[in-house]
Amino acid sequence: MSKLPNVTSSIFSVMSQLANEHGAINLSQGFPNFPADEQLLQISERLVHGNIHQYTPMAGLPSLMEKIGKLTFQYYHRNINSSTELLITAGATQGIYTAINTFVNKGEEVILLDPSYDSYEPSVIMAGGVPVRISLNDDYSPDFNRIEAALSPKTKMIIINNPHNPTGRIWTESEFEVLESLLEKHPQILILGDEVYEYISFSQPHISFHTRPKLVERTIIASSFGKSLHVTGWKIGYLIAPENLMNEIKKVHQFLVFSVNSFSQHIISEYLDIVDFHAISKMYLQKRDLFRELIKDSRFELLPCDGTYFQLVNYQNISKQNDVDFSRELIAKHGVAAIPLSVFYKDGTDRNVLRFCFAKTDETLIEAAKKLKRV
Amino acid sequence: MSKLPNVTSSIFSVMSQLANEHGAINLSQGFPNFPADEQLLQISERLVHGNIHQYTPMAGLPSLMEKIGKLTFQYYHRNINSSTELLITAGATQGIYTAINTFVNKGEEVILLDPSYDSYEPSVIMAGGVPVRISLNDDYSPDFNRIEAALSPKTKMIIINNPHNPTGRIWTESEFEVLESLLEKHPQILILGDEVYEYISFSQPHISFHTRPKLVERTIIASSFGKSLHVTGWKIGYLIAPENLMNEIKKVHQFLVFSVNSFSQHIISEYLDIVDFHAISKMYLQKRDLFRELIKDSRFELLPCDGTYFQLVNYQNISKQNDVDFSRELIAKHGVAAIPLSVFYKDGTDRNVLRFCFAKTDETLIEAAKKLKRV
Ligand SMILES: CSCCC(=O)C(=O)O
Ligand SMILES: CSCCC(=O)C(=O)O
Repeated sequence: MSKLPNVTSSIFSVMSQLANEHGAINLSQGFPNFPADEQLLQISERLVHGNIHQYTPMAGLPSLMEKIGKLTFQYYHRNINSSTELLITAGATQGIYTAINTFVNKGEEVILLDPSYDSYEPSVIMAGGVPVRISLNDDYSPDFNRIEAALSPKTKMIIINNPHNPTGRIWTESEFEVLESLLEKHPQILILGDEVYEYISFSQPHISFHTRPKLVERTIIASSFGKSLHVTGWKIGYLIAPENLMNEIKKVHQFLVFSVNSFSQHIISEYLDIVDFHAISKMYLQKRDLFRELIKDSRFELLPCDGTYFQLVNYQNISKQNDVDFSRELIAKHGVAAIPLSVFYKDGTDRNVLRFCFAKTDETLIEAAKKLKRV
Repeated sequence: MSKLPNVTSSIFSVMSQLANEHGAINLSQGFPNFPADEQLLQISERLVHGNIHQYTPMAGLPSLMEKIGKLTFQYYHRNINSSTELLITAGATQGIYTAINTFVNKGEEVILLDPSYDSYEPSVIMAGGVPVRISLNDDYSPDFNRIEAALSPKTKMIIINNPHNPTGRIWTESEFEVLESLLEKHPQILILGDEVYEYISFSQPHISFHTRPKLVERTIIASSFGKSLHVTGWKIGYLIAPENLMNEIKKVHQFLVFSVNSFSQHIISEYLDIVDFHAISKMYLQKRDLFRELIKDSRFELLPCDGTYFQLVNYQNISKQNDVDFSRELIAKHGVAAIPLSVFYKDGTDRNVLRFCFAKTDETLIEAAKKLKRV
């Protein structure tokens, strides 16, 4: 009877629940434990008595859509038509599910780059598609030989998450160029660009699909205000795609959710007038640097982190346990929850790596680091 | 390339947009034009600075789920386990889509009773299923002969919307009994009970699937706080189903949206301590009676209305035009928007009937009635 016979609870639910049961510091599931910006909350308070509680139009609140259009121009110099190339979604996860389910038909293949976010594969399966999972290189850069070998007339879509969760890696200019020349020969392949961490990048600048004219006509870009504005509970995301693709996505969306939380859309719409995404990136840079500084003398080995709010560490100096067992021990014995990286691989590849979320107050990071240094 | 080749914009989007363009009174799309309860808004204001802006657990906010459990006991004497038999959804539409897409596999049939809500058929098609659409009787009661004739080993689900949108009809005790005996011979058939108007019933008491022990073990019930609390924009609904069914639904839900707007869930959770759904039903009864009284001297013929906030009228004394053309003329010439009933039939059956939404301020209803009396 099950559409998803092999599915169990998502790793994020499992680890957050374990963290709660053990009273551990939760650096597993990705969400901030500091308040949203005071100005955002003040807008909420001010708007609550307004006429903002009934259905928005199906594709989203027009004022919010216009402002996202402006943002896209401001950050990427891409001029979109916000009424025909944009859709507000109930979080990026719903946007990603909907994009996949709009375009992927029975037997069509979708290329995923492992470690890959846990909703991609089940979304492809629910669409009737076939996930083709390819591992990234050891440094988490794309392995274009393997990607090229996987391309076939059945390939319908490739999903590229950049900045990359869980590894924090960001694609380089030359990687985009290789992708461009590779896909030139395969005009039928769509790209789903998961850019939910687009505004959180550090040393390496984030290169968005918005800025790739050779690719953008076949690309659906997913983003998330939950991530960008640290209100993960609001579940307001969006998709941007050329009109011919967006028309098809809207057909599915209108019968899947119809429209999206109006209250949050109105608040975000006003807030976009004053928000500074560069400041958000800077705040996370400080948190990254603080966390790295705090645990650099521990026995965990820090891996690079160019973007997102996740830091990978290798623990092979500490234990030879597999990463799932080790992360359970870390919660139970040491009071810190992380995500084991192997769960994001098709075959459970275990490289003795854990993912920590540093979207936390400095106090929480200091407290967690103390515990981690004792390991 | 399209999954839904025959789909155009939903009738609700089309009519609301036409109403806006013509400055017509919008009695088409179902949403209230009066403010939400002041107490609900005050709770919003009070909670805004609280810790309510990050992900809730996947299945929903535990306190809200517990209160829905209590409500189900209070109204229907059904004792559910709120942590295993309940799921909060991004509106009832997402709940309905998810329930269908969890259980309906390629080639399996789903029985819909026309006039049927416009999201059912595309949701079945997206699941790979086959919609089997059967017309209700002329008085909108179920035609059990036709339903029985349609049952086959391929039948996976029957969708029953009660109180019924768009007709406002409510199933009787004896109709439930016939359904029970009919389905006894078909243990594989699931029921999707769309009860989003469960708290809006008038002359005829609403009989919920919650109160049918012979059916409830195979029934998924969908409901909606957007409807019940007149905050349609919030998009907070829920599903209730036995644990074995709910486990499968959750697998799909967790990768489709993961979780649902936290802010609204927290507010509703507190509000459920004080809300009185009987009072809400009473308010809509007054509006129904006002609207009926106001247009009873018009040339529109009022059909019965036992529940929901929709009133059907027959216009054959006025025009022989088809209902789509007539509803367009009503907007353009007379300044009132309604929904033509034929769009909810598989074959576009046209009975010269329109649906008006009376979830409007008394002033709006009075204003609309003035215009309708001039027709
Ligand atoms: C939807 S819960 C998971 C949040 C997240 O994106 C992550 O932790 O990677
Ligand atoms: C999702 S918009 C339609 C609202 C509604 O349920 C109706 O008008 O019938």
